[in-house]
Amino acid sequence: MLKAGVIGLGMGENHLYGYSKNPEVRIWAIADLDEEKLKSFSQKYSVPHSFKDYRELLKLKELEVISIALPNFLHCPVVIGALEAGKDVLVEKPMALNSQEAEKMVKVAREKKKVLMVGMNYRYIPEMQVLKKFIEQGELGNIYYIKAVALRRKTFPKDSTNWFKDKQKSGGGGLVDMGPHMLDLSLWLADNFDVTSIYGVTYNKFMPVDDLASALVKLNNGVTINLEISWETFTKPQFFLSLFGTKGGAMTNPLKVYQEFGDTSVEVTPEVKKEDFTSGMEREIAHFIKCIKERKEPSSSGEKGLRVMRILDAIYESAKTGREVRMD
Amino acid sequence: MLKAGVIGLGMGENHLYGYSKNPEVRIWAIADLDEEKLKSFSQKYSVPHSFKDYRELLKLKELEVISIALPNFLHCPVVIGALEAGKDVLVEKPMALNSQEAEKMVKVAREKKKVLMVGMNYRYIPEMQVLKKFIEQGELGNIYYIKAVALRRKTFPKDSTNWFKDKQKSGGGGLVDMGPHMLDLSLWLADNFDVTSIYGVTYNKFMPVDDLASALVKLNNGVTINLEISWETFTKPQFFLSLFGTKGGAMTNPLKVYQEFGDTSVEVTPEVKKEDFTSGMEREIAHFIKCIKERKEPSSSGEKGLRVMRILDAIYESAKTGREVRMD
Amino acid sequence: MLKAGVIGLGMGENHLYGYSKNPEVRIWAIADLDEEKLKSFSQKYSVPHSFKDYRELLKLKELEVISIALPNFLHCPVVIGALEAGKDVLVEKPMALNSQEAEKMVKVAREKKKVLMVGMNYRYIPEMQVLKKFIEQGELGNIYYIKAVALRRKTFPKDSTNWFKDKQKSGGGGLVDMGPHMLDLSLWLADNFDVTSIYGVTYNKFMPVDDLASALVKLNNGVTINLEISWETFTKPQFFLSLFGTKGGAMTNPLKVYQEFGDTSVEVTPEVKKEDFTSGMEREIAHFIKCIKERKEPSSSGEKGLRVMRILDAIYESAKTGREVRMD
Amino acid sequence: MLKAGVIGLGMGENHLYGYSKNPEVRIWAIADLDEEKLKSFSQKYSVPHSFKDYRELLKLKELEVISIALPNFLHCPVVIGALEAGKDVLVEKPMALNSQEAEKMVKVAREKKKVLMVGMNYRYIPEMQVLKKFIEQGELGNIYYIKAVALRRKTFPKDSTNWFKDKQKSGGGGLVDMGPHMLDLSLWLADNFDVTSIYGVTYNKFMPVDDLASALVKLNNGVTINLEISWETFTKPQFFLSLFGTKGGAMTNPLKVYQEFGDTSVEVTPEVKKEDFTSGMEREIAHFIKCIKERKEPSSSGEKGLRVMRILDAIYESAKTGREVRMD
Amino acid sequence: MLKAGVIGLGMGENHLYGYSKNPEVRIWAIADLDEEKLKSFSQKYSVPHSFKDYRELLKLKELEVISIALPNFLHCPVVIGALEAGKDVLVEKPMALNSQEAEKMVKVAREKKKVLMVGMNYRYIPEMQVLKKFIEQGELGNIYYIKAVALRRKTFPKDSTNWFKDKQKSGGGGLVDMGPHMLDLSLWLADNFDVTSIYGVTYNKFMPVDDLASALVKLNNGVTINLEISWETFTKPQFFLSLFGTKGGAMTNPLKVYQEFGDTSVEVTPEVKKEDFTSGMEREIAHFIKCIKERKEPSSSGEKGLRVMRILDAIYESAKTGREVRMD
Amino acid sequence: MLKAGVIGLGMGENHLYGYSKNPEVRIWAIADLDEEKLKSFSQKYSVPHSFKDYRELLKLKELEVISIALPNFLHCPVVIGALEAGKDVLVEKPMALNSQEAEKMVKVAREKKKVLMVGMNYRYIPEMQVLKKFIEQGELGNIYYIKAVALRRKTFPKDSTNWFKDKQKSGGGGLVDMGPHMLDLSLWLADNFDVTSIYGVTYNKFMPVDDLASALVKLNNGVTINLEISWETFTKPQFFLSLFGTKGGAMTNPLKVYQEFGDTSVEVTPEVKKEDFTSGMEREIAHFIKCIKERKEPSSSGEKGLRVMRILDAIYESAKTGREVRMD
Repeated sequence: MLKAGVIGLGMGENHLYGYSKNPEVRIWAIADLDEEKLKSFSQKYSVPHSFKDYRELLKLKELEVISIALPNFLHCPVVIGALEAGKDVLVEKPMALNSQEAEKMVKVAREKKKVLMVGMNYRYIPEMQVLKKFIEQGELGNIYYIKAVALRRKTFPKDSTNWFKDKQKSGGGGLVDMGPHMLDLSLWLADNFDVTSIYGVTYNKFMPVDDLASALVKLNNGVTINLEISWETFTKPQFFLSLFGTKGGAMTNPLKVYQEFGDTSVEVTPEVKKEDFTSGMEREIAHFIKCIKERKEPSSSGEKGLRVMRILDAIYESAKTGREVRMD
Repeated sequence: MLKAGVIGLGMGENHLYGYSKNPEVRIWAIADLDEEKLKSFSQKYSVPHSFKDYRELLKLKELEVISIALPNFLHCPVVIGALEAGKDVLVEKPMALNSQEAEKMVKVAREKKKVLMVGMNYRYIPEMQVLKKFIEQGELGNIYYIKAVALRRKTFPKDSTNWFKDKQKSGGGGLVDMGPHMLDLSLWLADNFDVTSIYGVTYNKFMPVDDLASALVKLNNGVTINLEISWETFTKPQFFLSLFGTKGGAMTNPLKVYQEFGDTSVEVTPEVKKEDFTSGMEREIAHFIKCIKERKEPSSSGEKGLRVMRILDAIYESAKTGREVRMD
Repeated sequence: MLKAGVIGLGMGENHLYGYSKNPEVRIWAIADLDEEKLKSFSQKYSVPHSFKDYRELLKLKELEVISIALPNFLHCPVVIGALEAGKDVLVEKPMALNSQEAEKMVKVAREKKKVLMVGMNYRYIPEMQVLKKFIEQGELGNIYYIKAVALRRKTFPKDSTNWFKDKQKSGGGGLVDMGPHMLDLSLWLADNFDVTSIYGVTYNKFMPVDDLASALVKLNNGVTINLEISWETFTKPQFFLSLFGTKGGAMTNPLKVYQEFGDTSVEVTPEVKKEDFTSGMEREIAHFIKCIKERKEPSSSGEKGLRVMRILDAIYESAKTGREVRMD
Repeated sequence: MLKAGVIGLGMGENHLYGYSKNPEVRIWAIADLDEEKLKSFSQKYSVPHSFKDYRELLKLKELEVISIALPNFLHCPVVIGALEAGKDVLVEKPMALNSQEAEKMVKVAREKKKVLMVGMNYRYIPEMQVLKKFIEQGELGNIYYIKAVALRRKTFPKDSTNWFKDKQKSGGGGLVDMGPHMLDLSLWLADNFDVTSIYGVTYNKFMPVDDLASALVKLNNGVTINLEISWETFTKPQFFLSLFGTKGGAMTNPLKVYQEFGDTSVEVTPEVKKEDFTSGMEREIAHFIKCIKERKEPSSSGEKGLRVMRILDAIYESAKTGREVRMD
Repeated sequence: MLKAGVIGLGMGENHLYGYSKNPEVRIWAIADLDEEKLKSFSQKYSVPHSFKDYRELLKLKELEVISIALPNFLHCPVVIGALEAGKDVLVEKPMALNSQEAEKMVKVAREKKKVLMVGMNYRYIPEMQVLKKFIEQGELGNIYYIKAVALRRKTFPKDSTNWFKDKQKSGGGGLVDMGPHMLDLSLWLADNFDVTSIYGVTYNKFMPVDDLASALVKLNNGVTINLEISWETFTKPQFFLSLFGTKGGAMTNPLKVYQEFGDTSVEVTPEVKKEDFTSGMEREIAHFIKCIKERKEPSSSGEKGLRVMRILDAIYESAKTGREVRMD
Repeated sequence: MLKAGVIGLGMGENHLYGYSKNPEVRIWAIADLDEEKLKSFSQKYSVPHSFKDYRELLKLKELEVISIALPNFLHCPVVIGALEAGKDVLVEKPMALNSQEAEKMVKVAREKKKVLMVGMNYRYIPEMQVLKKFIEQGELGNIYYIKAVALRRKTFPKDSTNWFKDKQKSGGGGLVDMGPHMLDLSLWLADNFDVTSIYGVTYNKFMPVDDLASALVKLNNGVTINLEISWETFTKPQFFLSLFGTKGGAMTNPLKVYQEFGDTSVEVTPEVKKEDFTSGMEREIAHFIKCIKERKEPSSSGEKGLRVMRILDAIYESAKTGREVRMD
C-alpha cells in the first residue's frame, strides 16, 4: 500500500476521493490552513495525520505520494519542496505561474527521478475518453483544425477580491485558469504537443487580469488550434471542443461526430455514460498510481504541462507586443 | 419519344406529373369518368387526346405506355385489356383484388412480352433510397427481423360509404390498401421475395372490411417480418419500418441508424433531402421508362407484385382458419 | 405479526423494503451467499436471523412467509423446499425454468395448501394501476388486440459471462427474463389467461440464448397479443404496451388514452403519480400478506404464473418447429 | 339564387370569399372608395356591378343580401340605409359605436322585418365549433366562470394615426375592437346573454382610446366572466378563453379539456381540424343565407349584438364612475 | 443571542430551519401536540425545551422571539397570548380568521410595543427579490395593472375532511389560504397598500368553503389588481403574477420582463438563482430578527397583514351582496 | 425615372426584384448568356431591352444605373467597362478576384465620378438592421471583440466541377465567397474599416481552393475579429456573428442580446420581423438609388469593398508565409 498525502483541501477534496477509491493507496496525511476542513476530512477518510503547516506533512518519511492543490503561486515552491523530500507529485493546473517556474519544477523532478504529473482531469470524463478512442480508431481521419472554446459569462461577483484577480498570485486571468485544460485537451486529442507559432490577443475589460483571450496556435504537423477563453464577457456561456478531420469531425458537450456513409452526410450520437465528475478523478488517480508503481512518465507529465505553460506565456507575449511568437 | 396514356386521374395525377418530367415521354392521352378533370389536366399537360371511356384510349395505336390508377376491382380487367392492346403497363397498388387475378395479369404480360410494373412509389422517397443504399453498403450487416407498421387512427368518417369498404370492389380493407407498400418495402429492403410461411389475424371492429391486421411472415433465409396495419383503431398514428441486422439496425420516418463504433453504441442521423412526394413519382416513372426502353423486368415487376398478393391472401386465410399457411 | 424471511438479496432487497413497510409483518430471517449483504441488511432492517445456507432458514419453525429471489434454476427446488417446510411463498419471475417445473411447484402448493405467488411488480406501478382501473370502468370498451414490446439495445457487455446466458441456468434469454412481465401484464389487463394458440420466432444473433423473440399469442376470446422482446439488438430501446379496444385505446410509458368525444378523436393524458419503483413493491407485498391472512389465491398466483410459463415454452417450441402450437 | 352585395372591401374581402363558396348566392355588387380594389375583386369574383358610392349599390332593386364592413362610425348609418332599402344585412363587429346606435339598428330591422346579423366569425373556427359541441354534450357540466383574455402587445406603431385611435370614429379602443368577439364567444358558449351587473376599469396609457380594459361581468344564472383586453401593453401576447364547469373545464388556443376519469384527473387534447380562417367565413355566410331563406333570427342576431354593445357601454361607464353598473 | 421558540411544527419546521441559520439566535423551545415531532426536532436542532401545551412555552421568561404556525383559528388567541407574555411574534399567514381578529392582534402589539410580523415567505424567493429590485430601478416605469393568479386543480382528495374545509376554523377556502400571498405580493411590488374599492365573486362548487374566487381590487393611485384564486377547479394549474407598467411589464414563474429597446419590442430573461424554498425562510427570519434588534416595523408588519385581511373580508362581502365594497 | 440595367441573371434576379420595387427606377435592359432567362425575365418585369452580349447593353446611352452579378473573374472588366460607359454601378460580392483589381475599379470610379457600390445584402436583413440600431443606441457599449463564423458542411457535391473551384476564376474558395459578407458585417457593426494586422491559416483538404480559413484580424482601435469560414468540413453548419462589448454582447441568427440590469445578468430576445431575403434587396437597391440621386458615397462603397479585398489578400498571404501581415 502506497501512503498518500494531500496538501490543500479545496480541489484537493476530489483527490482525497480519488485516492480513497484506489485499492493500492492508503490516505496517510492532509494539510490545510482551515482546521474545520482538516477535522472533517480526517474523519471522513480516516486520515491518521493532519497538519496546518504542509512542511510538517512533507517530513513524514513513510509518505510516498503527494497531491498539491493550492493557489497558483504556491504550486512551484511546494511541488519542489515535495520532490526534494523524495515524493512523487500530482499538482493541480496551472502547474505554475509561468514557464520559468514550470521548467524548474520539471528539472527537479528529473534530477530526483520522481514522478511529476499535472492534474488534467477533463481528459478522464466519459465523453473525452470516448472521443479519444474514436480518434485512435480513425473515425475522424487526420485532424487538421481544432476550436477550443471556454467562454464564461461571469466568474466572480463585480466587487469580489481574491487572489485569482491578482496577477502576482494567479499568473493571469481566465487564460491561466481554463487555458491549461483547453490546450491540454486539444494537444492530447491531436496527439501532438509540438507548437511552432502563436498569435494572440487578451483583454482586461472588467478586471485587472485577462477576462478574454483569443489565439491561433500552430503545431508542427500543420494543425491549427483556435483558442477562445473568457472569465467575464457578455455572451452565452459556451464550453466545447470542435475537431475537424479529413474523414470526420466532432463536437463535444454533448459529443457528436460528423461523417459520411457513402455520399450521405451523417451526424452520429454516441451513447456516453453519465457519470459525475468524481469518477474522472478516480481514473486520474489510478493513472498516477500506475505510473508511480511502474516508474513511467504520466500521460500528462510535468514536461507536457511545461509545454502548455510555454504556450500561455507566448499568448501573453503576443498580446503585449502585437506580434507573432515563434517557438520552433 | 414514347407516347404515354393515363387511365384514372385520382392517383393518376401523380403519374401525369412523373411523365411530364421525363424527357423521353410525350403524354398522349388520358381517360376518366370525370369530365372536369379531363378538361383541366388536358390543359395543364397539353394532352392531345382525352376520353371518358378508357377503351377508346386503348384503341390508340401509337400509344405505347399506360398508367392505370383505378378502383381496385378494375385493375385486373383494364390492365389485361391494355396488355392485350400491346401496351407496357404501370398499375397502381394493389395490383388486383387477389392473387388469382394477379396471376392472370402476369401471365398475359409474359405472353404478350410486355412490361408490367406495379406502382411502388414509397421505394422512391429519399429516406428509402438512402436506407437501401446503406443496406447495400453493409451498414446493417445481415438483416434478420423487420417490423413494418402502418397504423392509422381513422381513415374514413363513421358513416362514409364508398367502394373502399366493399370487399367485392376493394379486395379487403387496410391490409389490401397499405399491405402492398409495407410488404414490398420489407421484401425489397431484405432483398428477398421468397416467403415460406405466414400466420396472421385480422379484425373488422368498425367496418365491413378489415380495420386491423397483424401477421408474422417468414422468408426462406430466416428473416421474419412483423406486419401491423390498420385503417381504424384507437391509437397514436404510426408509420415506420424497423430493421434489425447483425451489424446495425434502422428505423424510418425519420431515418435513424443504430450501430457500434468499437464498443460504443451510436445513433446515426443521416441528412436526407426534403422533397415532396412528387419527386418520387418522377423517379418511379423514370425507372418504368428505362425498363421499357431496355425491355428489362422492372424492380417492382408484376411477378413481385404477385408474390405480395399471395402474402395478403395467405394472411386472410390464416386469419380465417386460425392456422399457419405454408407457402414453400 | 407474521414472521417473514427473504432468500436471495439481489432483487430480494426490494422485498425487504416491501416487508419493512408492512405493519403486519416482522422481518425474521435472511439468507444469501454474500456475507457482506447479510451483515448490512441485518443491520438496516434489524433482522434477528441470517444464514449463508437457505436450508437453515427454512428450518425456523416460527417463520411463515418467504420471499425467494434467486437465479432462475434455483427457483423450483427452493420454492418446493419452502412449501414443504410449510411456508407461504412469494417467488420472483420467472417462477421456474419451464412449465414442467412450474407445474410441480403449483402441485406442491396445492397439496400443502400454501399460498404461492409470483412477483409481478410491474402491475403495481402507478400507471398500470390507473390503466387497469380505466379498463374496468370501460374506458376502452372490449380489448381485442395488445402489443407488448420490451426491446433493449444491449443488456450485457459483449464479453460478459454469467448464468443469464447459460440456458441450463436461466431457461432462456430475453424471452424468459422480460416475457413473464409483458405476458402477465397483457393477460391481466385483458382479464383473460386462456391462451389457445401461439406462433413465434426467436433469434440468437449475439449470445447463446435468445436475444430477440417475437410472437402472436391468441386468447380464447379473440384477443391477440403481439409480443416483441429483446435483450440485444440494434434499435431504439422501447418498452410499452399498446391496447386496442372497441371504445378506446391506450399506450403506456407514458400513459395515454385514445377515445372519441362524439365524433371528435381525443388523446387523454391522465395525471399519474410519480413514484419510485419501491412503492410498487410495498403494494405487492401488501397483496401477498392480505392473501396469506385471508387464505385467498393471489392475483398473480402460481397457477397464473404456470400459464405464462406454458406460453414461453410454446414460443420456444414454435420457433424450433416453425409451426403453430395449439393450447386448447 | 340570392343576389348579394358587399360594402367595404377590407374585411369585406372575406365576405366575398364566403359568398363565392355558397351555392345559393350570386355576388352581384361591391362598393368601396378604393378603385383598385373594386377592379381587382370585380375580376376575381366576376361581379357585375361596382360602385364608389355605396348609395348607388343600395339602389339596385334585385339585390337582396348585403354585407357591410366599414369603419365603425359608418356601420349605423349604412346598415339602416340598407335595411330601409329592404335588404337583409350582415354587419361586421362592432355593430355600432355604442348601444344607442345599435338599438336604432335593431328597431329598424324589426320594423322592416329584415334579417340583421352581426359578423361573429370566431364562432366558426374549428376549435370553437368543437368546444361548443362538447359543452352541448355535457363534457363540462354547468359552466360557472369564464376567463376571456385578448392581450396584444402592440397593435399600432407608436406614431401611427388612423380612425381607430379617434373615439368619435371608433367608439373606443381595444375594448370596442376585441370586446365584441370575447364577450360574444363567452355568452354564446355559456348559452346565456342575460347580464345583470358589470364592474370594470380601462386605461389609456399609450393612446387616446383605451389600451387596456378589465372587467367582471355577471350573468343572471350566476356565471361570471373575467374579461381582459388590450391593444397595447408590455406583456406576452395572449388570446384565449378558459371555461370552468362542474364536470370539466376547457382552455382554447389550443383547445384542451380538463376532466376526471373516476378519481384520476385527465387532460384531453381533441383532434381539431387545421383550417385557415376563410373556411370559418364560409360557414358564417352559410348560416346567414340559411336564416334569410328560412326567415329565422340568426344565432348572432342584431339583438344579441345589441346586448354585447350594452356591456361595452357599461364597462366604460363603470370605469368612469368607479361604480358597478346594474343591468337587471 | 436571542432565544427563540416555535409553536406548531408543520410549517413551523421551516421556521426552525430559518432560526438555525441565524447567527444571532438560539432555538430555545418548541411546542406541538405531536410528541414524535417534539422529539425529533428537539434532537435535530438541539432544542433545550419542548412542550405539548404552548402556554408552558410562553411562560419561559428568557424567551424573546416566537414563531406561530398553527391552524388559522388559533392564530389570534396564541399570538395575543405571546404578545402579552412580552414576546416579539412572527405569525404564519393568514394572520387571523378575519380583520376583526387581526385588528385586535395589531392593537395588542402596539400597546405592548412588540414586533408583530406576518410570514410572507414568497417575497423572499429569488425571482421575487429580483423583480422587486427591477421595479425599484424603474425597469417597468409606473405599474398600473396587476394580475395575480393562483389556480390549483385540486387541493384535497374528494372525501377528505380536515379543518381547512371548516369555515369556523379556516376563515374560508382558497381565498383565505392563497389570497394573503397573492395580495401581499401585489401590494408590495406596487409599493402601495391603500385599497379604495373591491368587487368580487366566490364559488363553492366542490366543497363547503370557497373553491374559486375572482376580484378586482383598486388602489388609491389608480392601480387595479385582478385576483384569481382556486383550491379546486378543472383547469391547467397556474401560479403567477403579471405586472403592467408604463415602461415595461413582467410575468413571474418563470420571470420574464417585457420592454422596448428604441422601437423594438424585447423579451428579457433574467438569470435567477435556483434555490430551494428554505433559503427564502432564512432571509425571512433574518429580516424578523433585524427588526427585533433595531425595534423597527417589519416590511410585512401586522398592520400590512391587517390591510390584506380587510381585502379578504371585503371580497367575501362583495360576493355575498353582489355589490362593490368601498374602503376609502 | 432612372433607367436601370442588370448584367447576369443568377443573383441578378434579386436585383431585378429590388429595382422593380423602387418607384424611381424603370428596368430598362438585361443581359445574360442564357436566352431562356432573358425571355422569362423580360416578360416578368416588362424589360424593353435584352442582350446576350453585355457590351450591347452598355452602349445604351439612356441607361444610367447598372447591376453586375457575374462570375468573380468578370467583375473587374465589366465594372470598369460600365463605369467608363458612364454608368453608376452596383457590383455583387466579391467585387473582384483580389485587391489589385479592386483598386483599379475604385480608381476608375473616382476618375469618372461615378457611384460604385458593392452588394452587401446581409446588412439589410431585419436582424442586422435591428442589431446595428442597438449598437448605435449604445446597448453594447464599446465593442472590442467579434467572432464571425460561417461554417458550411458541404457546398458542392464531391465530383462537381465549376468555376467556383478554379482559383483563376474565383479568386479563392470559401474565404473569397463568404469572407466579404462576414468581414463587411463585422467592420460595419464595429463602425471601423481600419485594419492594422492579420494572421491567418487556410486549408485545402477537399478541393483545389480553400475549404477552411481561420484568421485573427486586428483593427486600429483595439478590436479583434476572429473569422472562421468553410465551404466544406465535417461539422455542424454554423452561421453567426458574436459581438463582445463593454456594456453588452450580442449573437445573431437568431438575435440575442446579453446585458445586465443592475447586477442581474439578462438575456434579451428582440422581436425581429420575419421577412424573406428579397425585402433586404429592396432596401439595398433603395440605398443605391438614393446615393445616385444625391451623388453620395454608398455605405458599402467601392472603397470599403477594396479594404475587405485587402484583408482577404492578407489572409492568403499570412497562410502562405506562416507570418503575420501588417497593414498599418
